[in-house]
Amino acid sequence: MAKKPQTKDSGLPTRAEDYSAWYQEVVRVAELAEHSAVRGCMVIKPYGYALWENIKANLDARFKATDPPHQNAYFPLFIPKSFLQKEMEHAEGFALECAVVTHHRLTTDDDGKLIPDPESKLSEELIVRPTSETIIGESFSKWVNSYRDLPLLINQWANVVRWEMRTRLFLRTAEFLWQEGHTVHADAEDAERESLQMLEIYRSFAEDTMAMPVIVGRKTESEKFAGADHTYCIEAMMQDRKALQAGTSHNLGQNFARAFDITYLSKEQKQELAWTTSWGVSTRLIGGLIMTHGDDAGLVLPPALAPVHVAIIPIRCKKDEDRAAAERFLAPLLEALRSKAFHGRALSVEVDYGKDRPGAKHFAWEKKGVPLRVEVGPRDIEQGQVVYVKRTHGGKQTLSREAFAERILDLLGEIQGELYERARSFRDEHTVCLDDRAAFDAFFTPRNPDAPEIHGGFVRGGWCGDASCEAEVKDALRVTIRCIPIEGELAEPFSGACVACGRPALAGQPRVIWAKAY
Amino acid sequence: MAKKPQTKDSGLPTRAEDYSAWYQEVVRVAELAEHSAVRGCMVIKPYGYALWENIKANLDARFKATDPPHQNAYFPLFIPKSFLQKEMEHAEGFALECAVVTHHRLTTDDDGKLIPDPESKLSEELIVRPTSETIIGESFSKWVNSYRDLPLLINQWANVVRWEMRTRLFLRTAEFLWQEGHTVHADAEDAERESLQMLEIYRSFAEDTMAMPVIVGRKTESEKFAGADHTYCIEAMMQDRKALQAGTSHNLGQNFARAFDITYLSKEQKQELAWTTSWGVSTRLIGGLIMTHGDDAGLVLPPALAPVHVAIIPIRCKKDEDRAAAERFLAPLLEALRSKAFHGRALSVEVDYGKDRPGAKHFAWEKKGVPLRVEVGPRDIEQGQVVYVKRTHGGKQTLSREAFAERILDLLGEIQGELYERARSFRDEHTVCLDDRAAFDAFFTPRNPDAPEIHGGFVRGGWCGDASCEAEVKDALRVTIRCIPIEGELAEPFSGACVACGRPALAGQPRVIWAKAY
Repeated sequence: MAKKPQTKDSGLPTRAEDYSAWYQEVVRVAELAEHSAVRGCMVIKPYGYALWENIKANLDARFKATDPPHQNAYFPLFIPKSFLQKEMEHAEGFALECAVVTHHRLTTDDDGKLIPDPESKLSEELIVRPTSETIIGESFSKWVNSYRDLPLLINQWANVVRWEMRTRLFLRTAEFLWQEGHTVHADAEDAERESLQMLEIYRSFAEDTMAMPVIVGRKTESEKFAGADHTYCIEAMMQDRKALQAGTSHNLGQNFARAFDITYLSKEQKQELAWTTSWGVSTRLIGGLIMTHGDDAGLVLPPALAPVHVAIIPIRCKKDEDRAAAERFLAPLLEALRSKAFHGRALSVEVDYGKDRPGAKHFAWEKKGVPLRVEVGPRDIEQGQVVYVKRTHGGKQTLSREAFAERILDLLGEIQGELYERARSFRDEHTVCLDDRAAFDAFFTPRNPDAPEIHGGFVRGGWCGDASCEAEVKDALRVTIRCIPIEGELAEPFSGACVACGRPALAGQPRVIWAKAY
Repeated sequence: MAKKPQTKDSGLPTRAEDYSAWYQEVVRVAELAEHSAVRGCMVIKPYGYALWENIKANLDARFKATDPPHQNAYFPLFIPKSFLQKEMEHAEGFALECAVVTHHRLTTDDDGKLIPDPESKLSEELIVRPTSETIIGESFSKWVNSYRDLPLLINQWANVVRWEMRTRLFLRTAEFLWQEGHTVHADAEDAERESLQMLEIYRSFAEDTMAMPVIVGRKTESEKFAGADHTYCIEAMMQDRKALQAGTSHNLGQNFARAFDITYLSKEQKQELAWTTSWGVSTRLIGGLIMTHGDDAGLVLPPALAPVHVAIIPIRCKKDEDRAAAERFLAPLLEALRSKAFHGRALSVEVDYGKDRPGAKHFAWEKKGVPLRVEVGPRDIEQGQVVYVKRTHGGKQTLSREAFAERILDLLGEIQGELYERARSFRDEHTVCLDDRAAFDAFFTPRNPDAPEIHGGFVRGGWCGDASCEAEVKDALRVTIRCIPIEGELAEPFSGACVACGRPALAGQPRVIWAKAY
């Protein structure tokens, strides 16, 4: 992460200097989001929301393309308190930080000030959904009657609220946007198949669309969702080497079916308790995108998700005749580019006729992470060419207008691939196998006092299987087990010792992933 | 609205017998939505939500296609009470029925029951947004600095909550989904242009996409949004002859700009107060669709919005070899149909291999309002043909498989047109010009004691311009002025008397639309 020449011009703190400040500044200068007047709630600005729309459209198509397909539906924002009471009786470690609605009317007091009308006090408080298992479970208990109704595969795009005092845009906010899938199955096998199918969709979305490599695994008992039998997840490494949980898929077993009475009549005419799953990703993914690809010059977006694929900067366009010449030259190029699609989305091309100098425009689009910037000056127009710069590599390249249009999908594909490879190399560089507690402690101890946030990474280490060992490491180092890998080489059984306590690692289990996390 | 032969089999009450019960039953049997365990909140089921997704996609594309384009963004769910206090000081008739959040944590009492934690009481209550003018106004006051930032054209797709005791699915629920556009302009003219531009988008969407004819007009002072200078609307006639306000566009003048300090530096370097607009449509449109096109056999959907365009019912498919024969026959048809698009959406075709009898399948798809049903029996397969029935006209037609695929877009276009024409004829039949109060009273008085809900319609009548006259009519008949038409023949000035009070009608104003309304 050496400084690049353009860093000086970006006006941003470097990642090495102050990673948190860099993150906040990227969110600000790329105009992704900002804090609102309401504590803990963010405003997602148009550019950030366009990114979310692209994430949403891509995932939504994947959910609908499964066989049988998932369908979207919409359930109430509010959850009666009694539903959470039921859930609490079925799940330990239940979260209680939530927005509680107690009145349904405002009125004015003697001074003309608005107050909750005491006469409108609700007989049962309503909770703004922190997640919808309970309210959806109530519907499902009515919708599911026979084995013919199964599997029931529902997804919801919604806002949810979990009260947070210390917030960070996209990564931790009281209100956030997400999707939550909720499904019902006739047996344990089908529920497990669903959990893994959705996990694979998340993996593929993260790696192929976000260009963000992830480790696919299972959570330990201490880290899983309280209501789940087990929780699967994808974990990515950010550039401060911390882990970001980017998506979770819960096999809920029969816990919610039992609490909400989701039963069905089997082929054999027996009343059976159903099996359920839930799975979700949120606007947190935008935080993951920023921290996976961003550099000291600003945001860097994978072309598969970028709201703008190509920004074209005409070097001379202040005078009417110059602008007209640029428009004439660009018209066939725009038509050619906009008729193409990358990862199923028509190319979005912006021509910046604004009043700023070309250099200022260049930096503005760079900060916004646009994959390709194109300059067109009077000489380029004469020669029928364009000069382009990839956001991943700063060098200027020249191509004829026609060749550029022909090459565009290859160029975007190259950028998409470069981003993935760069992130994977980074992660692999900062992933180590350790068997020794002293080395483990040293790995997670800041060495550079000037960049205390950047240290550590992923440790692949043995684990004895004991929750108290996890707790001890968490207390001492703020390091947790991110997941027990379940795919590829990482999932091969390990027969050594627990890196934390030295006792034998759990038999048949691979090295687990230890890291600090968001 | 004479009964059709199939009505007997639908199991629905007829519209003439009991219009409200008919509406509720259509919502139920078409599986659009249902009441939830939370008072006033609905569950939108997959088929109903698919309809909303189609509405949303169509409108969203229209908003983004304006020049300059509108952009989507997302603002907080919660509004600090003080923001509504500010609004109240700028708008009379401010609505106070809303969900009030007073605590941010649950805890358990001595009996293990969940209660709002008294220690988590908020110092300032938060209101779940009933609409977002205030919270968005706060952001806009920061975003707008110079005339170069204008116009600012933002839209939000969101859930909103207005407490309602008496609810009706889609038409009136405490929580509903909508879009709310919010824009800022440098001068009054540009704000007015925007209000009218969005009104025209709503009109065109209603008429061309929903096949629902509307009257385009302006609200009277009594009926406009409290915070607006004036409110434009589109008004449709339902089959019980009541009006449904299907969309509104508010020119907010400088009211919200003043309350939230939205100012800008003009070209002339003067600090100026901005002008704002807002405009919205909601899931209420689904209620409008149902009540415009539904018949005694169930839902009827315009092809431009139908989640399923064609339902194919193989007459014989229980045995494996029969199903295989049907599949072989249908494969090229499905490919041909699915490669086509109607109103920008790929055709959705379902083949119903379910275990019910063909007759039951026929009625099930009819109830769901699918525009075209196709039957394919063994003899049809032999002869290479399909039998189809339009949802608008019950007769069976036969075409060769190839000809059907070739004709499909014409058939859907015909259905779309027939629906519009049918609705327009119905509205025109029940729209009368009246100049006499006795006739006016009689028009709005139920004549058929067996169908008390179905009477009246739209009266085009003069209005003196006096709000007390509106109030008197509302009290006496529950009839209001739906709008003052602003387009076409309906907008021609009228020089007669006020139909309510007999005084001269307001000079230069057309006959206004009087009706009962949802």
